[in-house]
Amino acid sequence: MQDFTERTIGSQSIYEGKIIRVQVDDVQLPNGHTSKRELVKHPGAVAIVPFTADEKMVLIRQFRKPLEKEIYEIPAGKLESGEDPVICAQRELAEETGYQTEHMSYITSFYTSPGFADEILYLYEATALISGEAQPDQDEFVERVEVTLEQALQLMKEEKIHDAKTCYALLHWQLNNANHNKN
Amino acid sequence: MQDFTERTIGSQSIYEGKIIRVQVDDVQLPNGHTSKRELVKHPGAVAIVPFTADEKMVLIRQFRKPLEKEIYEIPAGKLESGEDPVICAQRELAEETGYQTEHMSYITSFYTSPGFADEILYLYEATALISGEAQPDQDEFVERVEVTLEQALQLMKEEKIHDAKTCYALLHWQLNNANHNKN
Repeated sequence: MQDFTERTIGSQSIYEGKIIRVQVDDVQLPNGHTSKRELVKHPGAVAIVPFTADEKMVLIRQFRKPLEKEIYEIPAGKLESGEDPVICAQRELAEETGYQTEHMSYITSFYTSPGFADEILYLYEATALISGEAQPDQDEFVERVEVTLEQALQLMKEEKIHDAKTCYALLHWQLNNANHNKN
Repeated sequence: MQDFTERTIGSQSIYEGKIIRVQVDDVQLPNGHTSKRELVKHPGAVAIVPFTADEKMVLIRQFRKPLEKEIYEIPAGKLESGEDPVICAQRELAEETGYQTEHMSYITSFYTSPGFADEILYLYEATALISGEAQPDQDEFVERVEVTLEQALQLMKEEKIHDAKTCYALLHWQLNNANHNKN
């Protein structure tokens, strides 16, 4: 199997933000030529697929500046340095929805945009939710909504659910239902 | 329903790359306070879920500099300015895998990282593939592989399939099979 590794031969820091860092790397390609790679460094994140006892999914409505629109998403948040993803998932779920739980089960992880960013997302399913008071960050404005699968699919059709992790969560839900009905 | 819109009151351009642009916007929050938003602008992309006549999915192996590893992904590529996504999908499929087809059906679209980037991905299922010669870009090194669902799920377990769009494609495949078996 041919090795496609791109060796770093130089790196220029472009920007050090609060959330992202941007750099341009010079790389040596497998054929010996050189090229540049524009890279966004991100601390990684968790997202939670929370189900209530009556089989609704808990979403939050929030404004997303990059998209200039409000969308409905599963709760999510950035990892703090060295933080265990499952601890982060419990913290973000409680902050954004008020729900607390000990029942977090790992679904999968994936890179969101492997072409230019190193952001990885850890996905957990949360059940046995205990109600509490949401405590969003100071500059975070969110509203909790709880939807049936039918309502969620309608929101996706209307592109009010419109991000990778939440679309993934809906397929996960549909597949679980399909497998459950089969058995 | 409370309006969470964040109004732009200033914008600073940080970087103009070949693929991404980076800017920091000053925003007015719903409570009147101000904050900053770090934004990555991206032209958008398409990804193709290609199935061969013997029900294998076509993947490409490539090195991803942001992740510093090789992964297996469905074929994908950036939109050119004003390009119709379905035309882009046919072009990228042919360039990366050699396969051509008139049979592209729209699956969905989603934003990959709505917290900091405006990258949108349009997803198409491709069937009735006609073989040809792959013609990757000059600085693009890829290998085509064709996998069964079982092989794909194993690659995902080993985190060799490890990006949002390809993980989504595998759930899509599983759900189609589950629905097909039900009927």
